[in-house]
Amino acid sequence: MFPKFRGILSPVVTPFKDDLSPDPKRFVEHCQWLVSQNAGLAVFGTNSEANSLSVSERRFLLEALLLAGVSPEKMMPGTGCCSLTDTVELTRHAVAAGCAGVLMLPPFYYKAISDDGLFRFYSEVIQRTGSGNLRIYLYHIPPVAQISITAGLIERLLKEYPGTIAGIKDSSGDWNNTEMLLKNFQPSGFDVFCGSDVFLLQTLRGGGAGCITATGNVNPAMIHELYRNWQAPDADARQARVTAIRRTFEMIPLIASMKAVIGWKRNHPQWANVRPPLLKAPREQFEQLCVKLNEIGFQMNL
Amino acid sequence: MFPKFRGILSPVVTPFKDDLSPDPKRFVEHCQWLVSQNAGLAVFGTNSEANSLSVSERRFLLEALLLAGVSPEKMMPGTGCCSLTDTVELTRHAVAAGCAGVLMLPPFYYKAISDDGLFRFYSEVIQRTGSGNLRIYLYHIPPVAQISITAGLIERLLKEYPGTIAGIKDSSGDWNNTEMLLKNFQPSGFDVFCGSDVFLLQTLRGGGAGCITATGNVNPAMIHELYRNWQAPDADARQARVTAIRRTFEMIPLIASMKAVIGWKRNHPQWANVRPPLLKAPREQFEQLCVKLNEIGFQMNL
Repeated sequence: MFPKFRGILSPVVTPFKDDLSPDPKRFVEHCQWLVSQNAGLAVFGTNSEANSLSVSERRFLLEALLLAGVSPEKMMPGTGCCSLTDTVELTRHAVAAGCAGVLMLPPFYYKAISDDGLFRFYSEVIQRTGSGNLRIYLYHIPPVAQISITAGLIERLLKEYPGTIAGIKDSSGDWNNTEMLLKNFQPSGFDVFCGSDVFLLQTLRGGGAGCITATGNVNPAMIHELYRNWQAPDADARQARVTAIRRTFEMIPLIASMKAVIGWKRNHPQWANVRPPLLKAPREQFEQLCVKLNEIGFQMNL
Repeated sequence: MFPKFRGILSPVVTPFKDDLSPDPKRFVEHCQWLVSQNAGLAVFGTNSEANSLSVSERRFLLEALLLAGVSPEKMMPGTGCCSLTDTVELTRHAVAAGCAGVLMLPPFYYKAISDDGLFRFYSEVIQRTGSGNLRIYLYHIPPVAQISITAGLIERLLKEYPGTIAGIKDSSGDWNNTEMLLKNFQPSGFDVFCGSDVFLLQTLRGGGAGCITATGNVNPAMIHELYRNWQAPDADARQARVTAIRRTFEMIPLIASMKAVIGWKRNHPQWANVRPPLLKAPREQFEQLCVKLNEIGFQMNL
């Protein structure tokens, strides 16, 4: 097995052609660039519009990366779906591909689900995948999934599947929760990743493993340098610059803003396409974003 | 095309074997019984655990019904998924099968989605399905999907796709919303179904088309009789009896309670199986439910 992830991963945005089919060529190009910038590939996350893709589209895009020679050591594909059977299919596919880990949403259709129900779901997935090479990162994103990965659930899963439950992405946006995870679970080797680069320095100071962050799609080098230099005297100033860029991208809903900016920087407007129910960045707002990014000296190092 | 739906539809519960694979034989048997009780088949709804099934499992179960000779005139399969491509695949399949309508959830992963985004989603599905035989019933279930079908969205869809947008299932649980829909849209032939038999009499008095209701799985004959006799002098008393049975089933989460009772009545305990993240009814609670159902004289007329 590959070493466990450390540092920065990008929930890779998914390029669509004008007919809204996934564009494997630009997807591979973007992933290769991310790897060159020291970012891991959390393909098929929230920012990837993964739940707007079919299972076969996800498999196809992962195969495209493998065919292009991208190492599965860098890959943490999202495989958690509402359906047990879909989740098992994608997880088995990722394990067979040799991916170093998977990022697993809880099933998110039914609300007010008990820890017992979530435990049963994760248990079934692990048992049906049936591989000692499976490494699961739990995906806690209550603002979107509306289902929480609680400390109690983590304890039960770690006890039952210690070699398989590898860590968590905390996208709660609540630092108190990340801190609790760092204190309770990181010491035993359960790796805590914050879900936004805004919390990266705090997470590393708390002993965490890194971050899996949207703006890793557009600003990976600067975030990686913060990760490398977190004990340097200028770490706080680095964090402030990273945060400023994040906040600028947030002028527009993040998926639309990042895709529009990638399209701008790569001179390929199709990159701005998103699948419904999401919408492209409106022209005027996008122009304001570009002005602001130029003002703060943002560069993508393509 | 078949006549539009009126009356009672059941969001058909999906039987699973002990390995949690769908059981087509018992599914067909249950659907045939429902049709014999004058209930339409809203297969693949919330109570069907449809989002816990893969696309291919849903197609397989629909094919099983067709093979068994169940008429597509009775079928309103749920086809709305988070993914545009999955939604189009299931909708095309339903139309090709000749189903009299489809019940369509909005995409429910991303939250705080605008009406523009939802309009774009439904538009893409309609255009890609590309059939004059498509009849869509919008599925408004904000407590679960966390995404609302607003009056503004309905207006825009009706204006753009008047022959295709056929009605709505209102599972908001909010009578004020159902009343608004009945007043604003029913007069122009947009059929309003309440999402619970508790509101059936009110809905019919307001000019609505009927109800698509969980307990249609276990109590279809009595609900149908209320529908047939809604102008009779004893209509309120009938509604009270229907509601009492509903409330009894709600002693346990509804999917688990209905499946356990079907298993009891059919003497086939596998019927109680549910897919995670849901959980079976606990034994003790189930026994209390049975006692209570016996007390109020509940019968399934199998």
